[in-house]
Amino acid sequence: MIHSIKVGISLVLVSLLYLLDPLYEQVGENAMWAIMTVVVIFEFSAGATLGKGLNRGMGTIVGGGLGCIIAILAQKLGGVGSNYYILIAGISIFIFGAIATYFRMIASIKKRYEYGVMILILTFNLVLMSVVREEQQVWEIACDRLLTIVIGFIISISVSCFFFPLWSSDQFHHSTLSTFQQLAYAIQGCLEDYMKFANEKENEAAATTNFTFCKSLMNSKSKDELLVNYAKWEPWHGKFGFSYPWQNYLKIGDLNRDLAAIILALRSCLQASKKPMKLQSWSETIQLTEPYCEEIGSNIVWTLKELGESMKQMRKIHASQFSTKLKASRAEIISMVVMMNIFTFNKISSTTLSILNNNNCD
Amino acid sequence: MIHSIKVGISLVLVSLLYLLDPLYEQVGENAMWAIMTVVVIFEFSAGATLGKGLNRGMGTIVGGGLGCIIAILAQKLGGVGSNYYILIAGISIFIFGAIATYFRMIASIKKRYEYGVMILILTFNLVLMSVVREEQQVWEIACDRLLTIVIGFIISISVSCFFFPLWSSDQFHHSTLSTFQQLAYAIQGCLEDYMKFANEKENEAAATTNFTFCKSLMNSKSKDELLVNYAKWEPWHGKFGFSYPWQNYLKIGDLNRDLAAIILALRSCLQASKKPMKLQSWSETIQLTEPYCEEIGSNIVWTLKELGESMKQMRKIHASQFSTKLKASRAEIISMVVMMNIFTFNKISSTTLSILNNNNCD
Repeated sequence: MIHSIKVGISLVLVSLLYLLDPLYEQVGENAMWAIMTVVVIFEFSAGATLGKGLNRGMGTIVGGGLGCIIAILAQKLGGVGSNYYILIAGISIFIFGAIATYFRMIASIKKRYEYGVMILILTFNLVLMSVVREEQQVWEIACDRLLTIVIGFIISISVSCFFFPLWSSDQFHHSTLSTFQQLAYAIQGCLEDYMKFANEKENEAAATTNFTFCKSLMNSKSKDELLVNYAKWEPWHGKFGFSYPWQNYLKIGDLNRDLAAIILALRSCLQASKKPMKLQSWSETIQLTEPYCEEIGSNIVWTLKELGESMKQMRKIHASQFSTKLKASRAEIISMVVMMNIFTFNKISSTTLSILNNNNCD
Repeated sequence: MIHSIKVGISLVLVSLLYLLDPLYEQVGENAMWAIMTVVVIFEFSAGATLGKGLNRGMGTIVGGGLGCIIAILAQKLGGVGSNYYILIAGISIFIFGAIATYFRMIASIKKRYEYGVMILILTFNLVLMSVVREEQQVWEIACDRLLTIVIGFIISISVSCFFFPLWSSDQFHHSTLSTFQQLAYAIQGCLEDYMKFANEKENEAAATTNFTFCKSLMNSKSKDELLVNYAKWEPWHGKFGFSYPWQNYLKIGDLNRDLAAIILALRSCLQASKKPMKLQSWSETIQLTEPYCEEIGSNIVWTLKELGESMKQMRKIHASQFSTKLKASRAEIISMVVMMNIFTFNKISSTTLSILNNNNCD
């Protein structure tokens, strides 16, 4: 909603370039390029806008420069309009377009600079066209267009960064924090399920919500990468510096996803164990395992909440320390899975075998 | 590589519009819009190109139409250039920009039509600008631009679809097929690990490659959705019809990801069980479980390969049948995890308990 209003304001500001006579006299028809810049680069977060804007700027400068060089070269060799000129232009467009497209497809460039390369190809072609058809100086065209693009860029960035800014870095930081909380809840949910299960209450509706979070977390990698990409473009603001270690956030995200996968597996194991469970009264088993499971479980929950809290307050913890703790949590959960199975099946393994043979274990 | 050459060819074709005099006389300066169209809509796969092209076309038509209506309305009320006209234009730009941006952010529109809405905003603004500044008929400008955009669209689509086409649908179909194969290999790898483990050979380098596939599969959801999005734009070709059930492919993908998560959990359990295992000679246990595990395992592997094969030959299997089979595989794997644990820990549970208490399991 705020974003929509911001776009509206930017559009009106840039439209003044052609609506008001004194401004139009300065920029002329090139006002079009300013409008285009605002519409195309204005994205939801400040980082995305800045990234696209800088890409557009760089693409225009490099593409325009290369276009000018080829145009001047062709002019010297043949003169504008001659067949020779057309031949050179055609060949250079082909070679240049193919090479630039090839670079555009390389994963690392595609991630951060795809838009810039696209603008580069476009500008190169438009400059060549302008030179062929308008009898103006090459540099003049290039400079006029660049000026209006800069105007559009400044309008977009000002509105995006200074008027209720929406930072990707804040968004990513908070989503990472809440992940720790949610994972802790999910583990608690598993423990509660296991205990409830003992008392044969089967209403686990409250717990399933947390598993939905785990499932959605599994598919969050590409979203995280996008946010980091934007966050990297964002200038210093609040608590995040220029060289803030976003890469470590990605590593934490990977470990959290691992943890979520194991929690989901734990849940599956619990569900699969339910049916055979009913065959036997097993309150003694639970009594035996309860203290161990509870100890491990609450230990993990505590670790996760502690990690989330220290990230929130931005205490300095060495990255390796962080990942060690998370890996330890993972190992503990796995041992919990294993242990639940031991005690559950210890007494009923013979029964289970026949069930598995009949293939009706869920 | 092929893609680069295709882009190069399209660029040269569209450049002829301004390089050759007879063509330039027809289109004039609007050749710029054809170039822009080609550069912007030409994507890697035919589906993506078609989708972007249609989005651009629709956006231009709707945006241009709305722009014309507002311009004519404002002309009737005040006449071009009057303050009244400027006021109407400014307000309509703000309202229209904000509303369109709001729609652009809605998830379902963002997914398929984001680019179209962007072009709509852009065209709307450019039409208003042209009306204010050039004393030409509104319809004339709109039609000329639309014509050149159509030329750019036709060039892009022809080169993209008829000259070594790269179809998203083919790519997605094959990646789904290979997923079945790779999952089958991963389960086989788990079984082999389990058996090897009995003979206390610890060289499992050969098996780990399959687990890498499982890990990368976990993060493939967004890529799948993108491919389906492109595949939906692709016209009838080869074996894929217009209303090909791509949604079912996404469901299969979800189930396969579930399966991969469980395979990874199975591996973790196997790894975690290793240490306590050494404390005991357990060749008898293995001898007891081997036939069961092998039966379940080979059953799953067979089912997966069968499913992959029937997809390859595009035999008609009812979707629910498909997912039932996959769900059954999942249940079987879970029972395998559970069973491995039963037999493994059956005899050594007392030893394990003390180990878990000392927290050095892993």
